[in-house]
Amino acid sequence: MGPSTEERKDRTTRWFEELRDEICAAFEALEDALTEEIAETLPIAEALRGVPPGRFERKAWTRGEDGPKQGGPEQGDLDRGGGGVMSIMRGRLFEKVGVNVSTVLGEFSEDFAKQVPGAETDRRFWAGGISLVAHLHSPLVPAVHMNTRHIATTKSWFGGGADLTPMVPDEDDTAAFHAAFRTACDRHDPAYYPRFKKWCDEYFFLEHRGEPRGVGGIFYDYLDSGDWDADFGFTQDVGRALLEAYPKIVARHMAEPWTEEQRRHQLVKRGRYVEFNLLYDRGTVFGLKTGGNVEAILMSLPPAVAWP
Amino acid sequence: MGPSTEERKDRTTRWFEELRDEICAAFEALEDALTEEIAETLPIAEALRGVPPGRFERKAWTRGEDGPKQGGPEQGDLDRGGGGVMSIMRGRLFEKVGVNVSTVLGEFSEDFAKQVPGAETDRRFWAGGISLVAHLHSPLVPAVHMNTRHIATTKSWFGGGADLTPMVPDEDDTAAFHAAFRTACDRHDPAYYPRFKKWCDEYFFLEHRGEPRGVGGIFYDYLDSGDWDADFGFTQDVGRALLEAYPKIVARHMAEPWTEEQRRHQLVKRGRYVEFNLLYDRGTVFGLKTGGNVEAILMSLPPAVAWP
Repeated sequence: MGPSTEERKDRTTRWFEELRDEICAAFEALEDALTEEIAETLPIAEALRGVPPGRFERKAWTRGEDGPKQGGPEQGDLDRGGGGVMSIMRGRLFEKVGVNVSTVLGEFSEDFAKQVPGAETDRRFWAGGISLVAHLHSPLVPAVHMNTRHIATTKSWFGGGADLTPMVPDEDDTAAFHAAFRTACDRHDPAYYPRFKKWCDEYFFLEHRGEPRGVGGIFYDYLDSGDWDADFGFTQDVGRALLEAYPKIVARHMAEPWTEEQRRHQLVKRGRYVEFNLLYDRGTVFGLKTGGNVEAILMSLPPAVAWP
Repeated sequence: MGPSTEERKDRTTRWFEELRDEICAAFEALEDALTEEIAETLPIAEALRGVPPGRFERKAWTRGEDGPKQGGPEQGDLDRGGGGVMSIMRGRLFEKVGVNVSTVLGEFSEDFAKQVPGAETDRRFWAGGISLVAHLHSPLVPAVHMNTRHIATTKSWFGGGADLTPMVPDEDDTAAFHAAFRTACDRHDPAYYPRFKKWCDEYFFLEHRGEPRGVGGIFYDYLDSGDWDADFGFTQDVGRALLEAYPKIVARHMAEPWTEEQRRHQLVKRGRYVEFNLLYDRGTVFGLKTGGNVEAILMSLPPAVAWP
């Protein structure tokens, strides 16, 4: 039971947009906090001189307009609708950060429908969500990813998570990040944090290198406890936890100068991020292969990368 | 009929090593041809000053030593043996070029064996090959890929190909590259070139972007005409065609200065190369997921890349 389908869509859509606005505002405030005085002490001082604090730029897209030019049979099968808004900022502190909100609806292809809960008999679906990936100029400030989504077929559920990818791991950052998500989890169910932390460690793992993508966080999917309002409340708290934890981590390191060697290490570590997203990330691979918006899906890829 | 299995292995292995030696010698000669006088006219003059011409460094690897730390069931199932030699050069002209030869043998997992000709009843296999990927400092010199291989189960066949990826396409380069492979093909079968060129265009295509990886070349697989010597001869001619065509293309452009904008475009275009290799390339994905040598497989990835 719980709210009607229409009400669920309205409430989650409003929330994803509200969270996007709060994240963008918090990140723009961090851009403002990187003063000229701080900038002059950084290795990129020269490049930053005279450059104003970054601001997000928004770009709306409509589903189906930017699909593959050579459509496979899946594209033909897939009834499409909806779209999204990309918010992207290339700033003085944030080298590249993207926050996407999207609302897509349609009908899964017959093959795909078999793998989706509740789509066996009725292939129609609706999915809304927010996703965030931030890459910073400084190798001393961790990259971060957060995504939450609500999906409705004849069933409905929430999924999402957040994980931190430091180039130079810092115990305090890792502890603060995990503490924020533990608090969010514990507020709803004491079983959530251990389960979702483990899921995150297993999911964000580069099998071919035998190494984790970062220092973890939480990951959850198919969350349908039977109490829609509670599940939505948890998903909101995951977004709030990101807002609570991450800006403080950024602020803690933004004034620290770095070495050329640390920057080099960051570029190489970012290569692992690319490997993960293109080889393993289900959302990326599925989105690209079924005609999703390429620019929005690949906004997660780092601005500069090295494979030495 | 034709030569015995042992003789096939010996002859192909010797050839792949011989071709590797010729390619490395030709590329080192190009490094020598980039004189101090030329270097002084290039945008990277300062970085090149006092740097000697590049030379290949070799590194041998043994199969199974560098697999995933967390082995999936495939790894346990897969009887492993063999290894290879990576030759890598980071030079003044070649930003990063890798030439790998490898010889691997073992037994396919049950699932994989079903997809491989001749492995249905006897899962043992032997595979030898050479692969080459070159990325240059100059955005005016095309990147190139070439790979040929011989695989033996209860059947045996050749496969391979070569394709050119210019950042700034040049009609003469494209024509010369295709002409060399057309000549190699036509020497063996007039049907080869049109068929293998088309196969290349289809294979090296980024569906999610609706764009080709480069300007093509040839691609072939499962080549078993019934005349092993002829098929081996063709595969040798494919290697020779690369040696015939590519160094001339490099030499034609190596003294041309480039703009910052062209370099930037090169870094972005290289992102497409990464997307192709990690999303679509069967060899890369299969190799990584079944415990191949990560360093050798990913040697194809460009040294510096941008996703703006």
